[in-house]
Formats: sequence, structure tokens, C-alpha cells
Amino acid sequence: MKENHRKAVILLSGGLDSSTTLAIAKQEGYEAYALSFRYGQRHDREILAAQNVAKYFAVKKHIVLDIDLRSFGGSALTDDIPVPKERGIAEIAGDIPVTYVPARNTIFLSFALAWAEVLEAYDIFIGVNALDYSGYPDCRPEYIDAFTKMANLATKAGVGGKTFSIHTPLIRMTKSEIIQKGISLGVDFSLTTTCYDPSPSGDACGTCDACILRLKGFRESGITDPIAYQKKDKS
Amino acid sequence: MKENHRKAVILLSGGLDSSTTLAIAKQEGYEAYALSFRYGQRHDREILAAQNVAKYFAVKKHIVLDIDLRSFGGSALTDDIPVPKERGIAEIAGDIPVTYVPARNTIFLSFALAWAEVLEAYDIFIGVNALDYSGYPDCRPEYIDAFTKMANLATKAGVGGKTFSIHTPLIRMTKSEIIQKGISLGVDFSLTTTCYDPSPSGDACGTCDACILRLKGFRESGITDPIAYQKKDKS
Repeated sequence: MKENHRKAVILLSGGLDSSTTLAIAKQEGYEAYALSFRYGQRHDREILAAQNVAKYFAVKKHIVLDIDLRSFGGSALTDDIPVPKERGIAEIAGDIPVTYVPARNTIFLSFALAWAEVLEAYDIFIGVNALDYSGYPDCRPEYIDAFTKMANLATKAGVGGKTFSIHTPLIRMTKSEIIQKGISLGVDFSLTTTCYDPSPSGDACGTCDACILRLKGFRESGITDPIAYQKKDKS
Repeated sequence: MKENHRKAVILLSGGLDSSTTLAIAKQEGYEAYALSFRYGQRHDREILAAQNVAKYFAVKKHIVLDIDLRSFGGSALTDDIPVPKERGIAEIAGDIPVTYVPARNTIFLSFALAWAEVLEAYDIFIGVNALDYSGYPDCRPEYIDAFTKMANLATKAGVGGKTFSIHTPLIRMTKSEIIQKGISLGVDFSLTTTCYDPSPSGDACGTCDACILRLKGFRESGITDPIAYQKKDKS
């Protein structure tokens, strides 16, 4: 395998954040390898979005892995637990919600690390956000730092003197700033999907935490969200 | 969910080490939840062994997850790379071999963490060994420590004041000591499988690194290995 330090693995969910993250990696000159997961999420329409976004940005390769997190359950996204609706921003920013999927980012980053090591890519991008987020512990900088330390002890490459970096370009940005950044980099947000509980035809619900944060971000950035909603939020 | 601090998730490959680890967890009074992976390994006969061992120890639940690491390749266990044969102990203990699967233990432990959090189990057992091992970086104590730190930042439980522990009871034992420990705890080693490259009927090759280490361990412990081999090592 030819050594090439400009390869990067990008975790791509098909949402607004990961699509912007992919655009940033491309802008920084990385050859992009996108990785998505069909993990039993109720909103697996996001896989289609990820495929469209990966194609739009002409990634070098896109892998969609099947991992069945329904075997464990424990989240509104993978189990028969209702997705919360119509919550206010303060409530969303409060406790860790039932849409938290145990260890999800750890699982995703572990697979990204595996692929990165095979590719001889030492850069991994993930669109986590510690500001306008849903209170998930695995979106915080201290978590990312700890994962990076572990990754460099876990791998043949790490032991051999290479250093894996986890890039989190959105971690300190507001949703509105992310949207503006995405627009400036040519992200077509009509391809993205954010909703935890879309209709069978794929329209966003407009009232789950993810929709509320997305809609707030578009409103604050003065840009119209191009995707279809069953019901716009009223705030 | 009832809180119960005596539940443990045990990574169970169906090999000698993980089977002994399960026996140790049971002896320590844990209610055992066994987790195995069909990851595209050429020796997927170990899944059958894991199922038999899980049954033998009457675990509370055994989950076998499908995760396709062949999508990434990069190892003799998941790709079209020949498994090394007839190597001496010094050679085995030298460089990290081609049977190394990038980030495998990190992926396995991440899933174990996810399940543990759902179960409200705060103890995870893994049969890694830093002494009579194959030179894998993700078997070392410093790696396990780093994973533990990361796990406690990654999770809702960790943020909520619970502490996950990764138990590695075999980490400083020789293969011979592991076998003796297993025998003392009633492990039926005839149920286990170790070989990286078994015959279609399931007989061990006797000449891959894993077989050589296993046979050496049995020889040194003065116990006869009860499994069938195509060819015994000659040393």
C-alpha cells in the first residue's frame, strides 16, 4: 500500500453536521473515505442521505456497515421507546435524552480507526458538537482526547510511531455557524436528513430534538432549510 | 431496569483464554452476559465453540453479533493473506504478525461497553494476555487503562458517577498458568477452539501461531490437549 498522509476517514451519517465535516475534510485537501452505519436506527433513511452526500462530494470510497445495535436496545433510536417531541431548547440541553445510544460514537470511531489503519490514513473526522448538541457525553472534547490516546495505544500503527488524530472541526460551533460554514463550502443541505422520526415518505417530523435544533440553526443563520417537513416548529 | 452490580459482560471468542476468563467471572459471582462476534474471520468455527462454552457455563444471555471486518481487510484473519505456519516461539513473540486485525479489541470492547451500559453492568471481562501472546498492541495493560478512561467519559453511566471496569484476569499469566487455572475452575477445553486455520471438519492445524502457543501451554502444564489436530507440532 502506498503511504499517503492525505487520506482521511470521515464518519458520515447523512446529517447536516457530518456532511459539513466531509466538506471541511475535502477543503483541507484530504482524499475522503466515508463510513456510515446501518445500526438498526429507526431513521435509517439517513443511509440514503449519506450515500447521496458521499456521491455529491465524490468520495474515494464509501462503506456502509451493518451493525445491529438493536441487539442491545436501550435507546429511543434502536428500541421501542418513544422519541421525545416538542421539547424546548433548555429541555433539550438539559439531561441526556432517551435518544442517547449507548457507546455509539465509541463504536463508530473504533470502526473508523480500524479502516484508517488498513488505509494508512492517520486522520479521522467526526462531526460532534459540544455546543448546540443533545447532551450526549460522547460529543465532548475530553472524550475525543481520551479516545485519541487509546487509539494510539491500540494499533500497530500507533505502536510503530504513527499518530492518529481525531478531527472535530464543528465541536465549538453553533448550529447556525455550521450551516453557514456548510453553505460556504457548497454543501447541498437538501441531500441531508436530520430527523429521528421521519414519515414513511421521508419528511422530517419537525418536532423531535434533532429537527428543533436544525430548524433553530437555519432560522438563526437566515437561510431557508431546503428539506420537507410534516410540520414546521412554531417557536 | 433493576440495578445489579453483579452483572458482567464477558467477551467470549470460544478460545482457551476467553473461556477461562468466563469461568473466572462466574467464580467471582458475576451474572454472566457473553458477547461474541462473527466478524468475517476465516476461523468462524470459533462461534460454535463460543456457543458451546456459553451453554456449558449457563450464561444469562449470549449475543453473537455480525460485524463485517472483511469490508476493511488488512489481516490474515479477514483477508486473502496466508496465515503464517511453523514459526518458532521467538519469531511469534517478535513483530506484530499479519494475523493482527486492526482495532479488533477496540471494536469488541466498544460493543461490550454499549451492552454493559444498557444492562447496567459495570464490569467487562476480556481474556487478553500480555505475556504468552502474539505481539498484539491491544493486549497490553496500558491500552486497557486508556480504554477504561475513555469508556468512563463516553457514557451516560460514566458521566452519571458510575465507573466501568475492564477486568483482564489473564493479562500477566503464562499460557500454562491459564490452562491450569481453567482446569481448576472446571473449564472443558474440549469445547474450545484456538486455531486460525482449521480444516473444513474443524480440526486444528497445529502449526499456526495460535496452535503453537496453545500446544506449548498444554505441554508445559503437563495436561493433554483434548482437541483434535491435523498435525501436532514437533517441538
